[in-house]
Amino acid sequence: MSDQRQAALEYARQNKEQSLKLLETFLSIPSVSTDPSHLPDMQDAANWVASQLRDLGMQKVEIYPTARHPVVYAEWLGAHPQTAGARSAPTVLIYGHYDVQPADPLDLWQSGPFEPTVRGESLYARGASDMKGQVVAALKAVEAIVRNGGLPVNLKWLIEGEEEIGSPSLEAFIADHKELLASDFALNPDSGMIGQNYPTITNSLRGLAYFELRVYGPASDLHSGIYGGVVHNPANALAELIAGMHDAEGRVTLPGFYDKVRPLSAEERAEMARLPMDEKHYLEQTGAPALYGEAGYSPVERSGARPTLDVNGLLAGFTGEGSKTVIPAWAMAKISTRLVPDQNPADVAGQLRRYLEQSASKDIRWELIEMHGGAPSISDRNNAGVRAMGKALESVWGVQPYFRREGGSIPVVGQMQRLLALESVVTGFGLPDDNVHAPNEKLHLPTWYRGIEAFIHFFLNLASKTG
Amino acid sequence: MSDQRQAALEYARQNKEQSLKLLETFLSIPSVSTDPSHLPDMQDAANWVASQLRDLGMQKVEIYPTARHPVVYAEWLGAHPQTAGARSAPTVLIYGHYDVQPADPLDLWQSGPFEPTVRGESLYARGASDMKGQVVAALKAVEAIVRNGGLPVNLKWLIEGEEEIGSPSLEAFIADHKELLASDFALNPDSGMIGQNYPTITNSLRGLAYFELRVYGPASDLHSGIYGGVVHNPANALAELIAGMHDAEGRVTLPGFYDKVRPLSAEERAEMARLPMDEKHYLEQTGAPALYGEAGYSPVERSGARPTLDVNGLLAGFTGEGSKTVIPAWAMAKISTRLVPDQNPADVAGQLRRYLEQSASKDIRWELIEMHGGAPSISDRNNAGVRAMGKALESVWGVQPYFRREGGSIPVVGQMQRLLALESVVTGFGLPDDNVHAPNEKLHLPTWYRGIEAFIHFFLNLASKTG
Repeated sequence: MSDQRQAALEYARQNKEQSLKLLETFLSIPSVSTDPSHLPDMQDAANWVASQLRDLGMQKVEIYPTARHPVVYAEWLGAHPQTAGARSAPTVLIYGHYDVQPADPLDLWQSGPFEPTVRGESLYARGASDMKGQVVAALKAVEAIVRNGGLPVNLKWLIEGEEEIGSPSLEAFIADHKELLASDFALNPDSGMIGQNYPTITNSLRGLAYFELRVYGPASDLHSGIYGGVVHNPANALAELIAGMHDAEGRVTLPGFYDKVRPLSAEERAEMARLPMDEKHYLEQTGAPALYGEAGYSPVERSGARPTLDVNGLLAGFTGEGSKTVIPAWAMAKISTRLVPDQNPADVAGQLRRYLEQSASKDIRWELIEMHGGAPSISDRNNAGVRAMGKALESVWGVQPYFRREGGSIPVVGQMQRLLALESVVTGFGLPDDNVHAPNEKLHLPTWYRGIEAFIHFFLNLASKTG
Repeated sequence: MSDQRQAALEYARQNKEQSLKLLETFLSIPSVSTDPSHLPDMQDAANWVASQLRDLGMQKVEIYPTARHPVVYAEWLGAHPQTAGARSAPTVLIYGHYDVQPADPLDLWQSGPFEPTVRGESLYARGASDMKGQVVAALKAVEAIVRNGGLPVNLKWLIEGEEEIGSPSLEAFIADHKELLASDFALNPDSGMIGQNYPTITNSLRGLAYFELRVYGPASDLHSGIYGGVVHNPANALAELIAGMHDAEGRVTLPGFYDKVRPLSAEERAEMARLPMDEKHYLEQTGAPALYGEAGYSPVERSGARPTLDVNGLLAGFTGEGSKTVIPAWAMAKISTRLVPDQNPADVAGQLRRYLEQSASKDIRWELIEMHGGAPSISDRNNAGVRAMGKALESVWGVQPYFRREGGSIPVVGQMQRLLALESVVTGFGLPDDNVHAPNEKLHLPTWYRGIEAFIHFFLNLASKTG
């Protein structure tokens, strides 16, 4: 092991306490991107990131305003080939986001979502795992290298504030700043691990198409005694439309939904079957009484390689304590689909619209709002970045990393592929039980410290001849 | 026409001004039963009613406390058979309530809800139609008879203060005072007229069974990317359960739901077809794009004589602005059924439970909370009370009264049937556009004065041999 590597790893190990404190400061900023009341917190979080990057000696640190939440950019391009015959130092674009999901329902949190609290081996706070912890891991890994001999690679940072609301401004930002962002590949640590002892690289991500469906009936709320049986209750009608979106086999019924779905090869199915994610795993992770899904596919296939449709929210009529005998004037559902290669969000919006045109009865009106979407992605598992990361993970965990198709969506991966011709190394150090997007989100600290070391290996691997 | 009848009617006509003043005094008391800040007003209203009854010479006038708002009771049992061969004088239990709905939203009232104001032919105030006006009509009719020859029937009065909050204390009060309340039949003027020129007797009321259905899935909210396709989403599952509660013909599918439903006779259907409530009427009243309901029945039949099932509220997951990609841990629906003779709430609770047992899949858990219920009621259209009222209405309006089955519920009618074996004559002089439970509640005064006369006829009809 090189002296620099050893020194940087040692530095990271001795600075665990400071790393944790730094993360706690970041987590105390309630940067909920979807909630307009948190607008000042969003600015605070962007400023905080920018100031960290300045402290690391990054240059051109700038906060770019967008239509909604700003993008933080920084770069350091001082790396040069170190020895004759070595290739020129690569440039890595590090992607991250400083925004978090809403914290509600608040009453289910054991400690305040924005009051980071260590319990056992974990740090609890909204954003601890998704993904402020990952951003801070990258910051601390770079710090360890900077303070121990300097960076052997060029870095660019793109830290956005809209990931949790579908990155509405990011695509335009990327398209408008192609030269600024030009790099050899991207590092995207917004994915997680299969388990504590399973270092993971994600080589495919599902896409997303998110909708709000509103059903309208009578002109105003009606008395359910006087008018029950006379009008189509919008809440009942909405339930009927939602129920019709799946068939008895758990397949989505939107017309044409599966037309562009890339079939799983026998080889890929065999590889997925090796992942430590069997029915028992999913039962434990979810606490559901039994699993559910499209007939003919295993849970890991259904979550990673098959498209799905879920209701994310329902609202109609009287929802307080007690009873009110009302026929509500309207009902609403938030509905999202997860997409796999080669589906795309625009197609799916059209399919949902056609389904509604075919299925909705004339005694109600409906409105479909297309909220946001992102394309699915699938990437080469043998590029230089992925190889450097694979080796880094193996150095820290002592096992070969696992490749997986991830059920979640990271639309920026597809956008960078399309707009910048940039492949991403998608990884991260969150665990499946981190309660991401849920109350009591946590980060497993021993795994996180390993993650910082893995990033140190990764950056140094990129510069070494054998990287 | 008998001298007494003529004198009493004349008395009422000459005392219109005093009747209006008396009603205005009653309406000035803001007896809002649901609002704890109006507790003193509730007591004032009960005292006011008791004092009116004393002034009429009623006996045993008493204010019975209950867990919440008191019940006013009074009686006069001095009537005797007037001529040899006549049957003994009947005893009528007059039901009413002195409480009113809340007045909000206040800014939509043209004059203060508790500052009774005459505009045009109507008196505007909260409770004018529902039902202080109806109570005062009964008081003034009895006064006209008392002051002109005396009552030929025995009277009992039961005026409660909790109708607008579902009469939580009334059933126990009735059960505890069976002897006190024993009568030949009840007069319940808490229903209304179909229209100004349509004197109406409500001979059937739908019952109610109200539930909260909760569906539980994963142990906590899940990320819809990571777990979409692996667990049964409780919001989707709830929608599927709700959708399955109706078939394609708009019929309710709960097992056995229609078993006890009393079929409509051809005669009753013909009579309902005469009511001025066609499809156009319901389209105008509801503002719905089209009507909906059980195949094979007209809207007025569906709302009055057929049982229905409606979702009154829906709640699951994320319902705020924007989007959240969550699989909710649970989903909830408020669901109520309107029942017709001879269904009953307990049966229907069992049917819904069986439906859920048969239909819910094993990948979710469900919980059914039985909120409250009330039996439907139907009364003999040929009993002495109904005949006396029919004749009374015809005397005043000059047309045969309309019988209708009301879609709403007046649980006390069923309670009196069950606990006291007492049939009710259900009528009233409110109109469909009285804005009951809404801002600018009103009472159409010419119709109300006719109502007082109709009550005079009614009480005298009961005593006459031809009544």
